[in-house]
Amino acid sequence: MLRLSQLFVRTLRDDPADAEVPSHRLLVRAGYIRRVAPGVYSWLPLGWKVLRNVERIVRQEMDAMGGQEVHFPALLPRDVYDLTNRWTEYGDNLFRLVDRRGADYLLGPTHEEMFTLLVKDLYSSYKDLPVLLYQIQTKYRDEARPRAGLLRGREFLMKDSYSFDLDDAGLQLSYDTHRATYQRIFERLGLPYVIVKAMSGPMGGSMSEEFLAPIDVGEDTFVRCTSCHYAANTEAVTTALPVISELDIPAPKNIPSPDCPTIAALVNLLNAQHARVDRQWTAADTLKNVAVMLRHPDGTTEPLVIGVPGDREVDMKRVAAQLSPAEVDAFDEASFALYPALVRGYIGPSALGLISTSGIRYLLDPRVVIDSEWVTGANQKDVHVAHLVYGRDFKSDGIIEAAEILSGDPCPLCSSPLEIASGIEIGHVFQLGRKYAEILGLSVLDKNGKPAVVTMGSYGIGVSRAVASIAEVFHDDLGLRWPRAIAPADVHIVITGKGDDGTTDFANSLSAQLETEGLEVLLDDRAGVSPGVKFKDAELLGMPIIVIVGRGLAAGTIEVRDRLTNTSSEVSSDTVAAYIVTLARSDD
Amino acid sequence: MLRLSQLFVRTLRDDPADAEVPSHRLLVRAGYIRRVAPGVYSWLPLGWKVLRNVERIVRQEMDAMGGQEVHFPALLPRDVYDLTNRWTEYGDNLFRLVDRRGADYLLGPTHEEMFTLLVKDLYSSYKDLPVLLYQIQTKYRDEARPRAGLLRGREFLMKDSYSFDLDDAGLQLSYDTHRATYQRIFERLGLPYVIVKAMSGPMGGSMSEEFLAPIDVGEDTFVRCTSCHYAANTEAVTTALPVISELDIPAPKNIPSPDCPTIAALVNLLNAQHARVDRQWTAADTLKNVAVMLRHPDGTTEPLVIGVPGDREVDMKRVAAQLSPAEVDAFDEASFALYPALVRGYIGPSALGLISTSGIRYLLDPRVVIDSEWVTGANQKDVHVAHLVYGRDFKSDGIIEAAEILSGDPCPLCSSPLEIASGIEIGHVFQLGRKYAEILGLSVLDKNGKPAVVTMGSYGIGVSRAVASIAEVFHDDLGLRWPRAIAPADVHIVITGKGDDGTTDFANSLSAQLETEGLEVLLDDRAGVSPGVKFKDAELLGMPIIVIVGRGLAAGTIEVRDRLTNTSSEVSSDTVAAYIVTLARSDD
Repeated sequence: MLRLSQLFVRTLRDDPADAEVPSHRLLVRAGYIRRVAPGVYSWLPLGWKVLRNVERIVRQEMDAMGGQEVHFPALLPRDVYDLTNRWTEYGDNLFRLVDRRGADYLLGPTHEEMFTLLVKDLYSSYKDLPVLLYQIQTKYRDEARPRAGLLRGREFLMKDSYSFDLDDAGLQLSYDTHRATYQRIFERLGLPYVIVKAMSGPMGGSMSEEFLAPIDVGEDTFVRCTSCHYAANTEAVTTALPVISELDIPAPKNIPSPDCPTIAALVNLLNAQHARVDRQWTAADTLKNVAVMLRHPDGTTEPLVIGVPGDREVDMKRVAAQLSPAEVDAFDEASFALYPALVRGYIGPSALGLISTSGIRYLLDPRVVIDSEWVTGANQKDVHVAHLVYGRDFKSDGIIEAAEILSGDPCPLCSSPLEIASGIEIGHVFQLGRKYAEILGLSVLDKNGKPAVVTMGSYGIGVSRAVASIAEVFHDDLGLRWPRAIAPADVHIVITGKGDDGTTDFANSLSAQLETEGLEVLLDDRAGVSPGVKFKDAELLGMPIIVIVGRGLAAGTIEVRDRLTNTSSEVSSDTVAAYIVTLARSDD
Repeated sequence: MLRLSQLFVRTLRDDPADAEVPSHRLLVRAGYIRRVAPGVYSWLPLGWKVLRNVERIVRQEMDAMGGQEVHFPALLPRDVYDLTNRWTEYGDNLFRLVDRRGADYLLGPTHEEMFTLLVKDLYSSYKDLPVLLYQIQTKYRDEARPRAGLLRGREFLMKDSYSFDLDDAGLQLSYDTHRATYQRIFERLGLPYVIVKAMSGPMGGSMSEEFLAPIDVGEDTFVRCTSCHYAANTEAVTTALPVISELDIPAPKNIPSPDCPTIAALVNLLNAQHARVDRQWTAADTLKNVAVMLRHPDGTTEPLVIGVPGDREVDMKRVAAQLSPAEVDAFDEASFALYPALVRGYIGPSALGLISTSGIRYLLDPRVVIDSEWVTGANQKDVHVAHLVYGRDFKSDGIIEAAEILSGDPCPLCSSPLEIASGIEIGHVFQLGRKYAEILGLSVLDKNGKPAVVTMGSYGIGVSRAVASIAEVFHDDLGLRWPRAIAPADVHIVITGKGDDGTTDFANSLSAQLETEGLEVLLDDRAGVSPGVKFKDAELLGMPIIVIVGRGLAAGTIEVRDRLTNTSSEVSSDTVAAYIVTLARSDD
């Protein structure tokens, strides 16, 4: 039994100054966590109980699917991460340190290398496979923008697992099994989720999906089709390509365009001075070329120009996901000064491309299809060029999914409109394939005694992030509302009587009865605290059932509140224990 | 059930090259752990189970004594550790790092500051006390000599707890309760221990005791009295002082002593040229002055001379413990060149002391009592001085327990002979007092509304080190022998039959029966592995009961081995399940 008179917790009436999102605000106010440094938190007793409940569910399900638990250090020597170049590729996101002997170490952001080498150390035959290993372990990433409390931390608890298979079919099976396990885990946690197609990020690999909890404060944006099953992180959305019908396009022609460095000004000029007969010019007729500066992990920089239809913004998150591990910076004054080939406001294809005189790499959004016609910059101040046809009049160095996705865009599978929402990444499954096994030399002898490179999957759940995600989903204006499976206690009993009126005795005996039934009880036995304060605390702390033992006891009634529905019942004191037990088990 | 055919484990026939001690050798050979870097290990499934079993017992007992579990980050900002000066004092033992914004961080070696500040954050009244908080958390120390596998690691798992009391009596009670809990924990773990008086080390504080597991490979040396209850780490032994009877001592007199830079040569010279009438000169008549160079945490160095009776060596571990946080280096050629006042082999008190011309600090072992008479160096090459009386003819800057403790030395309490043994520090309890609370401003309002500084205790158990300590105590030439409470499985069933002879079916059904009884079973169901290899693996892996299902089954008998006693019984296959259950519970 947890007695509030002794429990190490203090609630705060005011929101912490730095809290941006409800989970952060409430977890701090309710005394579940405390901030130690940006993105680094301490867990107080109630918070720690929630975290351990989440951890227990994750562990049970990982064990149930045949996972074997191991545990790697967080402090890792550099050499292994040099082999895969991630020591460099992780850039500023890696916490690096030097030991007393001058050796380089890092704090592990993820453990692909370590798992691969461990399996290589122990296994050598196809008979040993498949194997599925996991750990629940503290990870470190020096995030540029730690934010939102536990949602994006720099020290956080993760379950990461890795599957090792002999062939693609085995990997697919491991992947599917993991995906099903993750569905069970999030269902047990009570956490709603959407499974979306994902970018694989700096880990490499092919097939990859994210589990997103659809919450407005989420950092991830995803689309889902209003008609078919398609869903994807916007970083990973593929574009439904426009079809080109026009074939007989005049030769390119320069257009004087003084003071038209913006798409809006250009469209106005076109409609005013070069009116079409068929329709008005729109931004969709223009090609916008946006320069960015890439910072590669080795410290070098590279200018890059990205072309998108003028009616779309460049979505920097999508771009960054595809250019990773390079980081994408804005192209500022100093950059323009360094690269005079780029005329601000008038950048155009004629000066772009690795084989052009400027040598600046030029990537196009896939919406810019072969044979499409554009009005775009002419690389001279106050001049644009019309009738420029991609493929006929200019080339690019490749494709990049760069344009922002808009609500109503066509689904790449069925062309129905897509809808857009925000979410928190709570899980990630992906097929790494043979990349790590090849670099690190993990192969086994197959049935014919020939070495076969092992194929891997990598799977993660943010355990501490799950706590915050659940708090995001389950709270109201009054406070937290924990799902039963992970609540620090099943029942919060509030004594509002004076002690000598039998309320304390009744509450103690009720607590004992409930604990006999296997329920965990938090008892507010504080003396000298007003009922109002106790109610407010109970609502803030968020146990799923609140029981009030007070004035009603004399008349034989106890108030039982369901914190999840915020409904309340008066129950006879004789039957209240049974009532609570039934309620507590109602969604088991 | 754990099936060896699928379990992620491989045993090694050969000892790892770097393994110095049995626990390290066996834990690696049996596939419990793997080395990642010096003092940094990964846990494989069997090892992880043992570690979690130890952790569970520690947590249960901490909860039972009213401890409340919290969890601090390992990544900690510098500022807090600056307040207590430990950022500097920890010297090279601290892992330091800088984040992407240039802020200084450390990896927590211990969390006194964080706990103190957390209680300060939440609590403000005497009514809130006492409180006892703990965590089971990964700690980091950049040890100069990581060694012996898990016994001295750089990343390790610790339970650390902290008590907060209003007054000394409260602290004493918290301390005593902790001490009793530790006794219960080590008894449940099956780990023998001796409680010894300890130095408090860089944490400050007063009363302090260590729990040492008496094992030869242990790094700590302790004494215990052969008669009374006295026991102490040699670092913390206090010296029984000699009594001086001689009072009428002649004036000091220089003695030419060419080629006598050693005590042995000096004693020979004295007996040859200055023979005593009453007895022979011995090394105990001489005062040996040993120079060392201190390296302070701020990087400065300081010469120091330590005087001990010539029949004793200076025990550098004792000295280091008392001079911490300064580190003690040898006084080398270069140091002698820097300090010409010190004449190598002839160092003597006349040139020593802060107020001497050299200004070099001079500390004496307490065996050098006031009025004691010595032959010692005269600070000139080839000259010693006799009849030098401490107090009359020379002074010191203080006392340091420096002389090595020898078996048979008198107990400081009862003068009976002390015995010396080695041990591994498995626990540490100590009364910090008000040091941290004062520096960090942790006070509460007392009954009279006046601020009172809180007094603290600090208590640690090395959880990962306990695993290795248990392996040190419980092993033989064949392998590990886990106590039941922490074994990864209760029973190891070996199938030595061919499968079609009923052995596999029997073993499977026996395993199921035992699991129904709540026992954990490790089943060696590997095909194509010889009985000899299976036996060797069973002995190496170390489950407390080994059951052999083989040829005897046809005749209705099963062999049951007790790995702890290495005895074996033939049991009827009809009753073997009940027999095993009884055996497995025999020491519950």
